[in-house]
Amino acid sequence: MSEAVSLERKSIERKAQEFMPVAEFEAAIRAVGAERYHDKHPFHHMLHGGKLKKPQVQAWALNRYCYQSAVPRKDAALISRLYDRELRREWVHRLLDHDGYGEEVGGIERWLVLTDGLGLDRDYVVSMKGALPATKFAVESYVTFVREQPITVAIASSLTELFAPKIHKERISGMLENYPDFIDDKVMAYFKRRLTQAPRDADFALDYVLKNAKTREEQEACVDAVRFKCNVLWVQLDALHNAYVEGHVPPGAFRAEA
Amino acid sequence: MSEAVSLERKSIERKAQEFMPVAEFEAAIRAVGAERYHDKHPFHHMLHGGKLKKPQVQAWALNRYCYQSAVPRKDAALISRLYDRELRREWVHRLLDHDGYGEEVGGIERWLVLTDGLGLDRDYVVSMKGALPATKFAVESYVTFVREQPITVAIASSLTELFAPKIHKERISGMLENYPDFIDDKVMAYFKRRLTQAPRDADFALDYVLKNAKTREEQEACVDAVRFKCNVLWVQLDALHNAYVEGHVPPGAFRAEA
Repeated sequence: MSEAVSLERKSIERKAQEFMPVAEFEAAIRAVGAERYHDKHPFHHMLHGGKLKKPQVQAWALNRYCYQSAVPRKDAALISRLYDRELRREWVHRLLDHDGYGEEVGGIERWLVLTDGLGLDRDYVVSMKGALPATKFAVESYVTFVREQPITVAIASSLTELFAPKIHKERISGMLENYPDFIDDKVMAYFKRRLTQAPRDADFALDYVLKNAKTREEQEACVDAVRFKCNVLWVQLDALHNAYVEGHVPPGAFRAEA
Repeated sequence: MSEAVSLERKSIERKAQEFMPVAEFEAAIRAVGAERYHDKHPFHHMLHGGKLKKPQVQAWALNRYCYQSAVPRKDAALISRLYDRELRREWVHRLLDHDGYGEEVGGIERWLVLTDGLGLDRDYVVSMKGALPATKFAVESYVTFVREQPITVAIASSLTELFAPKIHKERISGMLENYPDFIDDKVMAYFKRRLTQAPRDADFALDYVLKNAKTREEQEACVDAVRFKCNVLWVQLDALHNAYVEGHVPPGAFRAEA
């Protein structure tokens, strides 16, 4: 190897390890969404484009319940590791948004209004007995990730919320338009609420991650956390597509009676 | 061994494994408090009996801060393991009681009003740098216990709250009476609030444990959990007594400047 090439390699290596300026770091996080957020998945296009039959929408809703119902557990797992009271006080509102508190019914209840509207039995949905194993594995991996990774990285895994408002808007308009027989304003309440909740949460988490990732290594781990989370979401749509579009329904999983 | 003796032994063993009637189970739990709750500790008697100097009360307050600040983490650890939304919704109010939420400042802030009143630097208290290692080990063992034990057993470990109102009342009257120079109504706000919070929490948890311990083995594990928790509290007063009454202050721990 010539000395010039060797020097260039060293320069590239050094550059790769350099701390990213905040704008570049944020761009790297956002690039993950552009590349692999689940709004790119064929099943998402089918869902909001009106290409699914009711049983397929039912399958989507009851599988997605697993994800919804895991979210408060992953948020509590994070809180259980925070020694900073102010950060706990900030984060706990996510728990309350999902589980509700007092008069406020919460996001999971709103999700069950959607599954009710789709004619699914509530106990069956909540039991998760008909959910795809791949869904459950993905969702529990997310809880474990947040329970075990460094705090900043765990927080970074929530940053798919940056990309959520777009998908929620598409879902609301697409589903209302395309499934008038079983989707109405009432059952779309979950997504409408998330339109205001998600940006507030995402802004806080992004700000935290940009400020608290102190080394290039931590920055990379945060970008990887967003990739990981995109995988958690993507796997769920892949499993739905394989089971309910390709027709490979695994043993024990929900079967459409249509 | 004669046949009669052998038969009697078998009868005793069978009896030991029998499911306890609810009243007996509750009595077994309450008996733990009567035997070993930390209101029996000499340091408690000194504290509420006015036998301590201000630096000793400071040492107590800054060590007890470790316990206070761990409570929301242990409650979040429990919530992170609950698949039952209604139970999460019930339990989360403990988190909010301690950390506060929105306008409500919460119990930890009220504890810091007490340490402020005792003339301790807030950052020093919150840093826990001056706390006794034995305190920190005991407190973190409690968080780990709740994170790892079966749900019913984890909940049972909170049942020392059954015994708390008595100790709080003793503290309020004893401390107000005996330390007029540095204790007043304002700094005792924490205990006053707990007088109403603790019984509500204890009633719920007791009811849950009595209903959900389904075997003799689980019942015994729940009674043991209350013993464990009493040990968590006792160890803290032992460590204080050893350091600040007997005078064996370990390296790095808070030292009274009086």
